[in-house]
Amino acid sequence: MIVGIVGLGLIGGTYARNLIDNHTVYGIDINAKSLSYAEKNRIIDKGFENPKEILSKCDLVIICLYPNQILDFVTEYNAFFKTNAILTDAAGIKEKLVEEIENVLRDDLDFIFAHPVAGRETVGVKNSYKGIFKNGNYVITPTPRNKISNINLVEELALELGFKKVSKITAKEHDEIISYTSQLTHIIALALVNSDDFKYNTKLFIGDSYKDLTRIANINTKLWGELFFGNKENLVNKVDLLIDNLTKYRKSLENDDIDKLEALMEDAKEKLGRLNES
Amino acid sequence: MIVGIVGLGLIGGTYARNLIDNHTVYGIDINAKSLSYAEKNRIIDKGFENPKEILSKCDLVIICLYPNQILDFVTEYNAFFKTNAILTDAAGIKEKLVEEIENVLRDDLDFIFAHPVAGRETVGVKNSYKGIFKNGNYVITPTPRNKISNINLVEELALELGFKKVSKITAKEHDEIISYTSQLTHIIALALVNSDDFKYNTKLFIGDSYKDLTRIANINTKLWGELFFGNKENLVNKVDLLIDNLTKYRKSLENDDIDKLEALMEDAKEKLGRLNES
Repeated sequence: MIVGIVGLGLIGGTYARNLIDNHTVYGIDINAKSLSYAEKNRIIDKGFENPKEILSKCDLVIICLYPNQILDFVTEYNAFFKTNAILTDAAGIKEKLVEEIENVLRDDLDFIFAHPVAGRETVGVKNSYKGIFKNGNYVITPTPRNKISNINLVEELALELGFKKVSKITAKEHDEIISYTSQLTHIIALALVNSDDFKYNTKLFIGDSYKDLTRIANINTKLWGELFFGNKENLVNKVDLLIDNLTKYRKSLENDDIDKLEALMEDAKEKLGRLNES
Repeated sequence: MIVGIVGLGLIGGTYARNLIDNHTVYGIDINAKSLSYAEKNRIIDKGFENPKEILSKCDLVIICLYPNQILDFVTEYNAFFKTNAILTDAAGIKEKLVEEIENVLRDDLDFIFAHPVAGRETVGVKNSYKGIFKNGNYVITPTPRNKISNINLVEELALELGFKKVSKITAKEHDEIISYTSQLTHIIALALVNSDDFKYNTKLFIGDSYKDLTRIANINTKLWGELFFGNKENLVNKVDLLIDNLTKYRKSLENDDIDKLEALMEDAKEKLGRLNES
């Protein structure tokens, strides 16, 4: 298969590294340095700054741009994709994107929307590595417009990329559950760090729990701003739910209600146990 | 030095493993199985179910019991410690403990209160290993009653145990900063898991951020109940501060205020940067 990867950053680079051995992989990026780095290190077969030069040859186009750039890219290069090409993406929010893209997409093209639930607190192709996708979750949000054979192809591709589980769910459902597992967790990490008053030299008093909870606060603000605003109704609901639960702990402490505190902790342990069941 | 370790669980076992090569290490525990396991695996030189049989020989006694058990232990065995023995502990809260212990402690004994800021979501001597303390933070909360030479001895011991940084701070200050870096982080992990409504099969949609934030929710409820209630004024303040910051994110989303959202994210990144400075 001839694969074009649009946006050769951390995630695009990780796709490329996992596909280069079995496919022809072209990189498309406005950054010439990223392309030459990727060519030199055999992350891609060849790089192109101008999508028009290569899109017509690609059977599969993986768009690894920021969510808000995907519509613009598809709109601008709609005429240049190969006939019957399959398109896919890596965006962490889906509902609005799916609607917008399907409104403009050429009839013969099939966009299989997907979300590799994986990332790192780094950017750029140089920081990409095969293992980022290893054993992760991959979510496809099929639409009535998608061909089953193309959904199947993207599903098989996910396993080739190293993902362990592939799920299919509607875009609306995806955005609801992801607002909890991904956008909320990042808001928490940020708010925890915001809460540091530096009255003391915090780093002398941290253990692994603080490190684990704040690692992801080193955020790509542009990307995550898009993800937060692009999923804001769900995210606001999840922040409210979290505040409700934090308030329950607060009240149990204030009321010296050890039974309530223990019940809350046991509920969390039971839920965590369900999560860890194979 | 002859060292007695009271409470041979995860933390007591970790002390023992790090001290056995250079000291005589006796384990004291009500659980005979823990003692025989530790003897067989040369984690300790010898185990004792009855503290009275061995306390009088120990130059240093490291009490690794739950915070609420420490006062009872010292009260019950006050008469049995060696003359001029040094006592220390591993409790995660200090202010109340220090006051209570110093009220009852025999005049010739010197209790150097300390907190190894380290742990794992496991229990028991079998799960202990040397590396739990490796490169961690160790906090001593000296009191006017402590001899400088004994504080120095415990500080040197911390480095021998593998800790990287030793800080000295008052018990009151310790409890304030630890309510943020440790107790709050555990409340967050719990509240995040409590917020899971299992409307979807959550585990299919999680990435590393969710795993990192919830790992510590698999909590020892007895221990952490004591830590939460034993530091509840500070902890309630920190929960309130976190809710304030979460509410700022919520408002920026609701008001479509991207400038405010970005300012919050930048504030967090700046603070995280300060934390990671060497």
